[in-house]
Amino acid sequence: MNFRMILKSLGSVLCIEAFCMFPALLVSMIYGQGDKGAFILAMILVLLVGVLLYQIKPTNSDIYARDGFAIVALGWILISFFGALPFVFSGVIPSLSDALFESISGFTTTGATILTEIESLPKGILFWRSFTHWMGGMGVLVLTLAVLPSVKANTVHIMKAESPGPTPEKLVPKIGQTVKILYAIYIVITALEFLCLMLGGLSVYDALIHAFGTAGTGGFSNKNASVAAFGNLKIEVIITVFMFLFGVNFTLYFQSIRGNFKSILKNEELRFYVGVVLTSILLITINIHGSVYQSIGEALRYSSFQVNSIITTTGFGTADFNVWPTFSKCILVFLMVIGASAGSTGGGVKCIRILLLIKIARREVAKIIHPRSVHTVKIGGKAVDEETLSGIMAFFFLYMFIFVSAVLFIALDGKDIITSVTAVIATISNIGPGLEMVGPTGNFAAFSVLGKGILSFCMIIGRLEIYPVLILLSPAFWKRVNI
Amino acid sequence: MNFRMILKSLGSVLCIEAFCMFPALLVSMIYGQGDKGAFILAMILVLLVGVLLYQIKPTNSDIYARDGFAIVALGWILISFFGALPFVFSGVIPSLSDALFESISGFTTTGATILTEIESLPKGILFWRSFTHWMGGMGVLVLTLAVLPSVKANTVHIMKAESPGPTPEKLVPKIGQTVKILYAIYIVITALEFLCLMLGGLSVYDALIHAFGTAGTGGFSNKNASVAAFGNLKIEVIITVFMFLFGVNFTLYFQSIRGNFKSILKNEELRFYVGVVLTSILLITINIHGSVYQSIGEALRYSSFQVNSIITTTGFGTADFNVWPTFSKCILVFLMVIGASAGSTGGGVKCIRILLLIKIARREVAKIIHPRSVHTVKIGGKAVDEETLSGIMAFFFLYMFIFVSAVLFIALDGKDIITSVTAVIATISNIGPGLEMVGPTGNFAAFSVLGKGILSFCMIIGRLEIYPVLILLSPAFWKRVNI
Repeated sequence: MNFRMILKSLGSVLCIEAFCMFPALLVSMIYGQGDKGAFILAMILVLLVGVLLYQIKPTNSDIYARDGFAIVALGWILISFFGALPFVFSGVIPSLSDALFESISGFTTTGATILTEIESLPKGILFWRSFTHWMGGMGVLVLTLAVLPSVKANTVHIMKAESPGPTPEKLVPKIGQTVKILYAIYIVITALEFLCLMLGGLSVYDALIHAFGTAGTGGFSNKNASVAAFGNLKIEVIITVFMFLFGVNFTLYFQSIRGNFKSILKNEELRFYVGVVLTSILLITINIHGSVYQSIGEALRYSSFQVNSIITTTGFGTADFNVWPTFSKCILVFLMVIGASAGSTGGGVKCIRILLLIKIARREVAKIIHPRSVHTVKIGGKAVDEETLSGIMAFFFLYMFIFVSAVLFIALDGKDIITSVTAVIATISNIGPGLEMVGPTGNFAAFSVLGKGILSFCMIIGRLEIYPVLILLSPAFWKRVNI
Repeated sequence: MNFRMILKSLGSVLCIEAFCMFPALLVSMIYGQGDKGAFILAMILVLLVGVLLYQIKPTNSDIYARDGFAIVALGWILISFFGALPFVFSGVIPSLSDALFESISGFTTTGATILTEIESLPKGILFWRSFTHWMGGMGVLVLTLAVLPSVKANTVHIMKAESPGPTPEKLVPKIGQTVKILYAIYIVITALEFLCLMLGGLSVYDALIHAFGTAGTGGFSNKNASVAAFGNLKIEVIITVFMFLFGVNFTLYFQSIRGNFKSILKNEELRFYVGVVLTSILLITINIHGSVYQSIGEALRYSSFQVNSIITTTGFGTADFNVWPTFSKCILVFLMVIGASAGSTGGGVKCIRILLLIKIARREVAKIIHPRSVHTVKIGGKAVDEETLSGIMAFFFLYMFIFVSAVLFIALDGKDIITSVTAVIATISNIGPGLEMVGPTGNFAAFSVLGKGILSFCMIIGRLEIYPVLILLSPAFWKRVNI
């Protein structure tokens, strides 16, 4: 293991984080609500540690898969820790464990909060809180790689460890170039949403906050009632559309720039994603029409917003779906597990994995009926190799295994079953709200320190898709440490 | 597909069922509560259809895997249908759909009931209800194969389709002999429990009913309060021990007869099963002590009974675990999914599959840390082939997929989430009681006809471990039908 290289990479990530605090500092200076000092202090600290680590001279710059996974896992823990400092220094969240929860929730684009009253908080702090969503959405380490050219040996392992989905695609032969294209797409769509929200009537500040929350599929709002606070159909439609767009694999946008529309329409994951979204909207609309909303228009409005918010794992709310009928609530909980497309900013198991799991299951039945035929699982007309399929099945079991373990720990907090179970799903899939106490009108303040720790762990393990964190926890990994 | 051979086999199964109704007829004659006629009528009908089907002359007697699966799936539907007739004819359950639910619940050893008052019912009917557990435990088709020598071509496929677990082991080279040995063990342990219960103070009738319920890991009792009705520690200990024993792989009993104790102690599934049972008892005892029960002895008494009842998927109750703390309830729900050992009479995913899934997950992590090593998954020192591992992972996903689909359908009934979710788990894993409305003090009477239909489907798909039913539902299977 290349421990020096790991430390150097972590240093560069922290330097980037220091620079990322600059916009929040600017906002706090504009509004002058006394949170300026917190940012300056935090930036100095992050930069100090970052520069110190970056000075380390590695004997060689090779990074293998395990190093990549370690950099990503440690990197996310470090940026979350330093990202929590402005909350603590400003006095907004005095408890470090609470601040850490909020910071991890931001970077992992979960959007679960321990704050009960948001609107009275300093605007700089709320800006930083939402900006962590935007940084976390596309990946902080990938950003580092895109910006800093020095740490670039074998960076495909880092991208692999941080990008959601089973196999990240290279758009162009060079990985650095691929990352830059993805970030350019990310910035452009975020800017587009910002403009639309401005045109829809939001202030610059509100538009920025909600554009960050949508782009990262995070869900932090600066309003206590989330998007419902605007009571504005136009704004809801804009956010619904952009939530959907940020749940699509970004490589498809690259293909659309290249005019490759045919392959986009044929993309099986996109079709699956669209199919699940439309079916869920239809079923929930029928279910809540009459029982909760009197007009079909209202039912459609709230169901389309909520379905897109949940499947993309954003977590914005315009309705208290906790009071919807059981059928609608069950659909939403299952959408939480499915999640968005691979290569998007969304969380969850991801559409491509669910789609492949369904195909694998179908193959098992076909194997019994036609035992002598050859059975391959295909996606986009190409056979998927057994190694990848086996990895996806193992991933699914690991997801369930971690879910079960986390529920058992959370259950020790003594909350009801639905709160405990959906709190874990909402954090492991990086959504934010769950049901009952952690429903759209609730928050995570009532959990114990242990409970918040477990849920923070779930957020990181969910965002990094399990393996980087498990590798960090594996004794076999540490046996190979030699500085 | 050998459709004639399938029909002939089904005929023989029905003939066996007719004979199996004989003990219940005897009981009804002894007690003279007016249910005699119902059994005579049902027996005549079953025998008639059975003999008619058995007359069919197949052109060849080859049975392939798909035929075996079809025989098993159709066989279970048929025996459940004809097994429901005594309930209908006697007027105890006038509705055919309700009677079918009760019959399927009996044969699949689930033990979920739509009856609200049991103790006033005719003793012959209650005997039949519990006897279906005993028949269903080891497999009705396997029983047929053991008794009727004529239908024996390639019967390994039938055994494979009906026996719980990934790969049934042959104890002796001949499959017919293996089946006979397994049934002998089953009869001996059932008789042992019957004797112990008699010595413990139960009447012959009560002892038989509870021996059948334990042996098949079914859980139907003739008391409204289940085993709690006896309020007898001795009886509870006897049932706890035998529930545990019937959750063990029966091949281990065969090995113990042969004096092969070393391989029993080394058996990884047994160790896993014992480990899960002991850990769960310990954790639940600590959790319910103080909060529900004042003495540690009481806490241990109720937790050991309930843990063994749930993991073996029996479903007998001595305590209303629905009022236990969230932590204990979560453990019990997860035990429902895990289930008993392969080759036992219990349901659920099975210990061996969970154990192998954990090993597969561990391997995925090891693969990243040591990419150049060869990684095999071993059980009992032997490498498990990738085909089996892949099948187990696919099985796990299919189990979850069917769980999700069933929950969505059940949610349409409008019950609360916990009732809906645990009703599905309790039926798909063949346990019986779940939580809330279907908890230990509740029943399944409140579900609609559609709801009961879905749950009946879950019971059969769970008992037959998914594939036989899916194959029957697959269009590709029916394309090959030619009589």
